[in-house]
Amino acid sequence: MSSTSPIPADDPGLAQLYRDFDSRHLNPLWTQTADLMPASPAPRAVPYVWRWSELYPLAERSGDLVPVGRGGERRAIALANPGLGGAPHVTPTLWAAIQYLGPKEVAPEHRHSQNAFRFVVEGEGVWTVVNGDPVAMRRGDFLLTPGWHFHGHHNETDHPMAWIDGLDIPLVQYTDTAFFEFGSDTVTDDSTPDVSRAERLWAHPGLRPLIGLDAKTNSPIAAYRWEHTDRALAAQLELEDEGHAATCGPGHAAVRYSNPTTGGDVMPTIRAEFHRLRPGASTRPRHDAGSTVYQVFEGTGTVHLGDTVTRVTTGDLIAVPSWTRWAFDAESQLDLFAFSDAPVIERLHLSRTYIPEGA
Amino acid sequence: MSSTSPIPADDPGLAQLYRDFDSRHLNPLWTQTADLMPASPAPRAVPYVWRWSELYPLAERSGDLVPVGRGGERRAIALANPGLGGAPHVTPTLWAAIQYLGPKEVAPEHRHSQNAFRFVVEGEGVWTVVNGDPVAMRRGDFLLTPGWHFHGHHNETDHPMAWIDGLDIPLVQYTDTAFFEFGSDTVTDDSTPDVSRAERLWAHPGLRPLIGLDAKTNSPIAAYRWEHTDRALAAQLELEDEGHAATCGPGHAAVRYSNPTTGGDVMPTIRAEFHRLRPGASTRPRHDAGSTVYQVFEGTGTVHLGDTVTRVTTGDLIAVPSWTRWAFDAESQLDLFAFSDAPVIERLHLSRTYIPEGA
Amino acid sequence: MSSTSPIPADDPGLAQLYRDFDSRHLNPLWTQTADLMPASPAPRAVPYVWRWSELYPLAERSGDLVPVGRGGERRAIALANPGLGGAPHVTPTLWAAIQYLGPKEVAPEHRHSQNAFRFVVEGEGVWTVVNGDPVAMRRGDFLLTPGWHFHGHHNETDHPMAWIDGLDIPLVQYTDTAFFEFGSDTVTDDSTPDVSRAERLWAHPGLRPLIGLDAKTNSPIAAYRWEHTDRALAAQLELEDEGHAATCGPGHAAVRYSNPTTGGDVMPTIRAEFHRLRPGASTRPRHDAGSTVYQVFEGTGTVHLGDTVTRVTTGDLIAVPSWTRWAFDAESQLDLFAFSDAPVIERLHLSRTYIPEGA
Amino acid sequence: MSSTSPIPADDPGLAQLYRDFDSRHLNPLWTQTADLMPASPAPRAVPYVWRWSELYPLAERSGDLVPVGRGGERRAIALANPGLGGAPHVTPTLWAAIQYLGPKEVAPEHRHSQNAFRFVVEGEGVWTVVNGDPVAMRRGDFLLTPGWHFHGHHNETDHPMAWIDGLDIPLVQYTDTAFFEFGSDTVTDDSTPDVSRAERLWAHPGLRPLIGLDAKTNSPIAAYRWEHTDRALAAQLELEDEGHAATCGPGHAAVRYSNPTTGGDVMPTIRAEFHRLRPGASTRPRHDAGSTVYQVFEGTGTVHLGDTVTRVTTGDLIAVPSWTRWAFDAESQLDLFAFSDAPVIERLHLSRTYIPEGA
Repeated sequence: MSSTSPIPADDPGLAQLYRDFDSRHLNPLWTQTADLMPASPAPRAVPYVWRWSELYPLAERSGDLVPVGRGGERRAIALANPGLGGAPHVTPTLWAAIQYLGPKEVAPEHRHSQNAFRFVVEGEGVWTVVNGDPVAMRRGDFLLTPGWHFHGHHNETDHPMAWIDGLDIPLVQYTDTAFFEFGSDTVTDDSTPDVSRAERLWAHPGLRPLIGLDAKTNSPIAAYRWEHTDRALAAQLELEDEGHAATCGPGHAAVRYSNPTTGGDVMPTIRAEFHRLRPGASTRPRHDAGSTVYQVFEGTGTVHLGDTVTRVTTGDLIAVPSWTRWAFDAESQLDLFAFSDAPVIERLHLSRTYIPEGA
Repeated sequence: MSSTSPIPADDPGLAQLYRDFDSRHLNPLWTQTADLMPASPAPRAVPYVWRWSELYPLAERSGDLVPVGRGGERRAIALANPGLGGAPHVTPTLWAAIQYLGPKEVAPEHRHSQNAFRFVVEGEGVWTVVNGDPVAMRRGDFLLTPGWHFHGHHNETDHPMAWIDGLDIPLVQYTDTAFFEFGSDTVTDDSTPDVSRAERLWAHPGLRPLIGLDAKTNSPIAAYRWEHTDRALAAQLELEDEGHAATCGPGHAAVRYSNPTTGGDVMPTIRAEFHRLRPGASTRPRHDAGSTVYQVFEGTGTVHLGDTVTRVTTGDLIAVPSWTRWAFDAESQLDLFAFSDAPVIERLHLSRTYIPEGA
Repeated sequence: MSSTSPIPADDPGLAQLYRDFDSRHLNPLWTQTADLMPASPAPRAVPYVWRWSELYPLAERSGDLVPVGRGGERRAIALANPGLGGAPHVTPTLWAAIQYLGPKEVAPEHRHSQNAFRFVVEGEGVWTVVNGDPVAMRRGDFLLTPGWHFHGHHNETDHPMAWIDGLDIPLVQYTDTAFFEFGSDTVTDDSTPDVSRAERLWAHPGLRPLIGLDAKTNSPIAAYRWEHTDRALAAQLELEDEGHAATCGPGHAAVRYSNPTTGGDVMPTIRAEFHRLRPGASTRPRHDAGSTVYQVFEGTGTVHLGDTVTRVTTGDLIAVPSWTRWAFDAESQLDLFAFSDAPVIERLHLSRTYIPEGA
Repeated sequence: MSSTSPIPADDPGLAQLYRDFDSRHLNPLWTQTADLMPASPAPRAVPYVWRWSELYPLAERSGDLVPVGRGGERRAIALANPGLGGAPHVTPTLWAAIQYLGPKEVAPEHRHSQNAFRFVVEGEGVWTVVNGDPVAMRRGDFLLTPGWHFHGHHNETDHPMAWIDGLDIPLVQYTDTAFFEFGSDTVTDDSTPDVSRAERLWAHPGLRPLIGLDAKTNSPIAAYRWEHTDRALAAQLELEDEGHAATCGPGHAAVRYSNPTTGGDVMPTIRAEFHRLRPGASTRPRHDAGSTVYQVFEGTGTVHLGDTVTRVTTGDLIAVPSWTRWAFDAESQLDLFAFSDAPVIERLHLSRTYIPEGA
């Protein structure tokens, strides 16, 4: 909406009216600038790239200086979008952080209404215990901690481990729907199985246990293992090579992590996907309503964000605000983990996409 | 989450670490206070009551001083929740305003992705033209302007008219999903039928036209007329008198405005209801995740908001932030229009309610 | 599938094989004729028209000769499709009957898993009591008795009354899912209100009572009154006259009776609609998978069923088997009540329609 | 409904009335016996066991005597429930057959609206080509041919192979919704890959390809491989041994084959499951509305069907009509494949289950 309103700004009656509005907690629409109802989204959040090569050393220094335990709860360092005034929000709706757990450390159990996941860009040796079920964390794994599930972590090794956390903290804060409860100060099951009980029950393609036939709000698969993701992506590229429809663009394989009880997203507020570009492949530039975060899992390429082109490599994290024009070009094979607020945007029927002609 | 973290705040290494975080747009979780993950919702928005007896004269003065037309678009004065720093948000997710249209005035057509409704507490004589369909506005009517529908208003009479507008402007702004387009400078159909075409096609109980059999995102009923609402509420109280289950509490009749193609809410982001309390009746105190706005349509009573009790009467508007304890007591018969962000909270599976024992 | 299989029918080994199949309750596919897997549906049911002028006198004679009461339960005379071997099935999935209740007679209460409705082509004075709620029956009304609801009827007048019953008896029999229970020998509430409690609670356009917010298997509207149906159809034709999209074909208004809690069909196995053709209007010939029954509510016209053209008038009932080519032409204004097994066909994803070119 | 109606059967007027009914294709309800509306389901289908030791030799003899090819289409021998008058229906809604393909034989391609699956109790070497995608058939595999998918089979080996086919032929015939089309006389792709393209795209736990994000009517997984089924069942029993909830009864593991795009059944009309009982374990006797067919995949046990107890072993097929009391006892580990019309019963809201006390 244009802000050029034909209203005489220096009228004394009007000035008094505005003071009266103010004293009664009122706010006239006609003096609002275009930011209330812009022609297209004008996010305060900005496109931004955080370097793994900077994040990891900072996390390491935190490991030396900051204990982990009850009160601070987690040694997590959040990405704060430069456009959002210092708030620990990678985009308006999403939280992303690097979490670091030193040798033999334990992060105590708690639960909260916020939905959370972990994605492991490197390392292993930590188990996250979700509602009493120990879930091993290994490179390439995507792990769920849906809202109101108790969870804690423990590092069983002599080396530290770092991973990224993704949550809907800003959205839950915005909607004033946050609940939190402390749990056990140590993890409730310190065993270290290769796979969780949830996976043993649920991670079989197309097979549902008869004890879990209802549609569940969150995916019951506690961990989506790298071996499955990698195999699914490789298969898409092989099928493309054989001449069959399988990829979402030339040289562009992609999977969405899904809830096997509904076919929908893993959690009601967060979508997660994994994309693989062949060397030399590109995605088509586009604008999407809603915000996304990418982490380069492996490889090197460039990301286009609006008019900016940035070279990215393993571990780098990229914030793509709503309606920002974005695209990727792969130099090497480029493996990208992605998460977004798309389920929020879709469930509220606020979706829109624009793919420029000839882009 | 407790903010008492056992971290040595004066450690020089730590101070340097925090400076390094800051320079790289990072934000440690462990220094955040409880507001990131409070034990229960801690909204910045506050409970508040705006008086119709103050709103209407201010709207009248605006009518004298401020023209309506292209640019300013609407003579709408928004309720700005005192807890939200002057933003024109009645709660974090909702916009509420009094809109005023003088004799023979026209508000030009536009459309936006934000969902809107009007509710008429008094008066008549304005038609809102929604996608070319003229919809008469009369006392007690609830009218829809779903997202991306063109709409303008015109007053055919020699007297002014005021009503309230409800929108999801803050939510759409928050999610960066706002789109806006100007339309005709005058209304595209200035006829003044008693009922809209949408109503003639759709407002028949349990009957769907064969040309509209798909599930629609928004209710196709352009106006929910007072005569139907009033009759439905009266019937519930009569059934209660006859000894049948019909009311949601003793002396408390209530209807939800619904989308006849799904049975769900009228729009994806806004719920609207109408409640009627018999003289002397009360609602049971409760806490709900998500925020609600009430307008007294007719009658006198008291509203409990946390520990505060406020007497309210016709036209008064009440903001109930998330998790605020609330209840109503009716002195006279108390008719209440209500709208809320409940569809957002429910679709994102963030709902929670607490009804204190013995309340 | 062709039945011309190149199999030597007179081979003695084969003859023995077939005898061995038979003795072991086996049946070879390759000897089956095209009726197992025809190129397109080959129903045994035939298109047929029953005359109200014949049905009503037979019902009257039954009234003289056959008492109504426990055991026989209902004085209902079912239409037996001539293609279905004498079974009381108007089509393979549907039951249709004329039911007749003499002055002051009572049909005792019972309940069954079969879904039922009544449609009243003429008369009034009977109340059907559904789960204790008395529902007046009047000309043009469509009334529901969903599965497992207790129901009985009583005639309060000194004249008889007849109406049609529609049920899914053949489908429930076919799927072996029939349950039945006797109820009270008299109706449990013999009051005679103008409208049922269900209507008072539910028959308000777009308004849902707060005590009934869940999605219900069956429509909670006990009676869809003629005044609403007639008004909705008239409005569609008026809108067409004014140049707006409202009818499903030129001069062809139509509504579907719907469940306001879902927007879907009134019951899981039966669809009901009402169609109105202007004098001289026609429907376009088409073939639909699934079967339909029409009753002329008022007016005169012709029905095309395959290659047959039949003149029909008030009260006549028409069976349209699956995939039969059908169309109507109206002489006078032609009002048609219709019910079908479409929800079954759609829920099982067996729908198909063919509209011949140039038809 | 009782059939003892107090109607004078020898009244001459009544006799004439009944003749008049008959001549006008009418059928009075009150003379119908209890079979129209029985107190509980009274299926004509009977419980029955077919022996693999008899089926396989008969299929072999058919292989010698009956060619496979266009016209007969398939060398399939259907189980004809002894209660259903010789029709090739294993239950009222389901078809089950043993299909036999000799060395190097080809069954030509066709498609039909009926939904089909194959289950392999022994052998390998045949590929079924579904919409051009070759799907290897091996012991323990469950393979889909949803409605209107072209399909043919070819045996690449020097030995014959037999398997069972399950279809909804009776249901589609009953609803008159059958369509059929011939396809290629040979298979359109005679390659022999270990896994189908559909599996390479879809059979990854919880991962969906981005090119297939819509909800699909049928599962896109062409083959559910034995290795996954076996592993899922073994895991449930291990979890039970470790003290966790995983089995649907003591010693009773079970999975349902599901559509990963919805979490629902693999096809709209057929449910398929696999059950494993430990040696000595039993299922609790129960009655279900709807019919089921079991095939013993491996092991020995007894099946209770009403009052009959039958010993069953590998390959035996068991028909369980609606509402028949049934239970299994395992002697050895007992592996059971099951398919049923449960999606039909559930989608039409006709489900009911009764588990006798103390059973």
